Amino acid sequence: MEVNVKGKFAGRMATMQRSFIREILKVAQDPNVISFAGGLPNPDYFPIEPLRVAADKVLAGQGARALQYAPTLGNPELRQFIAERYQTTCGLDVPADDILITNGSQQGLELVAKILLDPGDHVILESPSYLGGIQACSLFQPRFVTTPLLADGPDTAVLAQHAAHPQAKLLYALPNFQNPTGITYSASKREEVAAILQENELFFIEDDPYRELRFMGEDLPPITVYGRRRAFLLGSFSKIVAPGFRMGWIVAQPELMDKLIIAKQASDLHSNYVSQLIIAQYLQDNDLDAHIATIRQAYGRQRALMVAMIEELFPADVQYTLPEGGMFLWLTLPNGMSAMRLFETAVKRNVVFVPGDPFHVDGTGQNTLRLNFSNCDAAEIETGMTRLAEVLREALIRKP
Amino acid sequence: MEVNVKGKFAGRMATMQRSFIREILKVAQDPNVISFAGGLPNPDYFPIEPLRVAADKVLAGQGARALQYAPTLGNPELRQFIAERYQTTCGLDVPADDILITNGSQQGLELVAKILLDPGDHVILESPSYLGGIQACSLFQPRFVTTPLLADGPDTAVLAQHAAHPQAKLLYALPNFQNPTGITYSASKREEVAAILQENELFFIEDDPYRELRFMGEDLPPITVYGRRRAFLLGSFSKIVAPGFRMGWIVAQPELMDKLIIAKQASDLHSNYVSQLIIAQYLQDNDLDAHIATIRQAYGRQRALMVAMIEELFPADVQYTLPEGGMFLWLTLPNGMSAMRLFETAVKRNVVFVPGDPFHVDGTGQNTLRLNFSNCDAAEIETGMTRLAEVLREALIRKP
Repeated sequence: MEVNVKGKFAGRMATMQRSFIREILKVAQDPNVISFAGGLPNPDYFPIEPLRVAADKVLAGQGARALQYAPTLGNPELRQFIAERYQTTCGLDVPADDILITNGSQQGLELVAKILLDPGDHVILESPSYLGGIQACSLFQPRFVTTPLLADGPDTAVLAQHAAHPQAKLLYALPNFQNPTGITYSASKREEVAAILQENELFFIEDDPYRELRFMGEDLPPITVYGRRRAFLLGSFSKIVAPGFRMGWIVAQPELMDKLIIAKQASDLHSNYVSQLIIAQYLQDNDLDAHIATIRQAYGRQRALMVAMIEELFPADVQYTLPEGGMFLWLTLPNGMSAMRLFETAVKRNVVFVPGDPFHVDGTGQNTLRLNFSNCDAAEIETGMTRLAEVLREALIRKP
Repeated sequence: MEVNVKGKFAGRMATMQRSFIREILKVAQDPNVISFAGGLPNPDYFPIEPLRVAADKVLAGQGARALQYAPTLGNPELRQFIAERYQTTCGLDVPADDILITNGSQQGLELVAKILLDPGDHVILESPSYLGGIQACSLFQPRFVTTPLLADGPDTAVLAQHAAHPQAKLLYALPNFQNPTGITYSASKREEVAAILQENELFFIEDDPYRELRFMGEDLPPITVYGRRRAFLLGSFSKIVAPGFRMGWIVAQPELMDKLIIAKQASDLHSNYVSQLIIAQYLQDNDLDAHIATIRQAYGRQRALMVAMIEELFPADVQYTLPEGGMFLWLTLPNGMSAMRLFETAVKRNVVFVPGDPFHVDGTGQNTLRLNFSNCDAAEIETGMTRLAEVLREALIRKP
C-alpha cells in the first residue's frame, strides 16, 4: 500500500500536546503571581558560590578535557560517586559501569521508552502519574493502563491483574514522594510490587528524583534492590544540586545498558561534559549531606506551613495528602468540582497550581490538583494559600 | 492479534548498533595511536580562558537564573545572537523565536526525525552520508534511498527521481564540507536542490555544523534561504566554540517549531541552561570572528599538509577530495581494496581512520575511508600519514 506522505508529520505526533505544566510556568513568570504550579526547587538553596568555585577549578585545571567530545556513558568520577552513594545511602550495590549520565531524569524516561515500547504495548501507570513520564512514553504510542494509588502505594490487586496481561511490558512508578501526589510506598508494598514485576517479567522504571528529600519518616530501599534484571532506576541532581545543569542518570544492568547507549548515541552522543566535571568537582570539594540536610529542613518547614494553612483556612471537605518528603502535596476537592475551573479563577487572583487532569490518562481526576511547596518562602505560602482559600470558599458557595 | 511482548525490546532496536566511530574513538585513546578517525576539533583552539571568565561572570552575577529550570526554546539572548549572525554572515532572515537550542546538532537530527518519520517513509540521503544522521533516522525505521555525491554536490537527476516518489518525506544533506567527504555544493546545485524540494513538498534537514570553517573559496548561502516552509536548518557551537557543552540549534518556522517543542519537552524539558548563559556571555565579551579566523587558518594549514603528504607518499591510484573547509577529506582506494581490512593493519601500526562502510546504507563504499585533519598537529600529521602510506603501499603489493 502506497500512501502519499508528503508534508505530513509522523503519526506519533497526532495526539501529543505541549506540556500543560510548562505552559502554566509562563503565566507564573509574572512577579505578581504566586506559583504553587511548577516543580521548581527553591533557588535560595542553590550552592551557587561552591559551584562557581568548582567551575573555575575545572576550566582552569582541565579545560581541554571538559570542552572536548566525551564518552557516551559519562564522566567516570561522577558515575563512581553515584555508585558509592547508592551503596552508602540504601545498600544498593551497582558498578559505575551500570550508570549512564542523562540530560535530567526526563531524558532517562525518553531513552527507556524508546528502547522498549512498540505501539500498543501496555504501560502500567500509577493513577495519577507524572506528566513528563506520560509524555515520554506517549511518543512511542503504547496503551496506558492505570493502577489507583492508595495512601501506602498502588492497589496491588489491580497491578497484578494488569501485569498478567500478555501485552504488559512496563511499569512506571515513583515510589518516593510521588509526583504529583506526594505518596510514598510502604515497605510491604515495595516487596509486593517487586514480586509482581518478577513473576510477570515486566520492565520497570523506578523514577526516584526526590529520594534524598525526605524530611520525616524512615528511608526505604528502592524497589530495584529486589531485582535489577529488568529495572531502570532513574536519579537526578536537579533536586539536590540544581536543575539548570540538566543532569540525571539511569542505573541499568549491562544487557539493558547496551541498548540505552545505542539510543543515547543517536539522541545526542553524550551529555554536557563541562557540567559533568563541574558537578563532580563540586561533590569532591563539598559536603553534599550537609547541603541536602539544609534543603530537607527548609522544605519540611515549607510543607508544614502549607499544611497548617490548609487546616486553618480550607473548607473541611477538601482532602489532602501528608507527604514525608519531596516537593508536592495533592488536593482532592469535593466530587463534581472542577479544578480546571478553579484554576481560571485563581489566575485572576494571582495564585496558580496545576489542575489534576494532565496527570490522568483516563479522563478522571477533574476534582484534583497539585500544590508545590518547595519554590515559595513562608511569606509567599501564607499569601498564596490565603488567596487560594478565598477562591475555594467562593467556588464552594457557587457550587449548586 | 495479541503477541506476548514481555521482556522484549522495541522493534526499532533490532537493527540498531553502537556507533562504529565512537567504538574506534576508544582505540584512539591510546597515546601511541595517531588518530585521523574522530570528528574532534583541535583542543589547542578551545577558548578556555575566555570561557572560564564567562563562567565565573555568569555564576557570580546570575547564578540563580542559570541554575533553575528554564524555557524549552532556550536562552533568548543566545537565540538572538544566532539570529543576527545568520543575518550578517549569509543574509538569512530569521526571528529568534524560530530558533530552538538543542544538545548539539545530534539532538537536532533526532528531534526532526522523531516528529517526521513513520516506518517506511523514504529518507533521501547523500551517498555517503553522516553516520549520526543515519542513526538518528534509523530509530524511526524509514526506508533509506541514496543520491550519489559528485564533486559539486548530489546527482540531481537521481535526487529528482527519488523526490517524486509518493513516500518520499525527507532529504538529509550537508551542503558545506560534507561529513564524511568534505564536498561542498556549488551555487547552481543549491538552487537545483531547492527547486526539487519545493516541487515535491519534501521536508529538508540542512545539517550545517561546518559552515564557518571555510579556509578557501567563497561562502555560499544555505539552501534554506530559498524556502523555509519545510526546512530544518541545523547549527552548532561544537566546531566554533567547543563540543563539550553539547550546544546546537534548529532553525524552523512556527508550524514546524510547534512540533519540535513538544518533542523537546518530552525528550529533556530544555537544554543545559548554565552552559547556554556561559556561551552567551562568552559571545558578548569576545570577538567570535577573530576566534574563528584562527581556527580556519590552523585547519587550512593542517589540511594542506595532509594533502601534501598524500601527493608525496600515497600510491597514485588512491583518489582524494580537496575540501574548501571543515574537518575531513575522503579517500577512494583502488577497486576491490577493503578499507576495513586496511584499518586492521593500520591499528597495528598505531594509526587509525574511519573506513567508509558505516557511511553507506547500501553496502557500497568498501574501498573508501575518511581522514580527519582538524585534531592533529603538524608533527602528528607527518608521522601518521607516513605510517598510513606504508600500510597502503604494502596492501597494494599484497593485492592480487
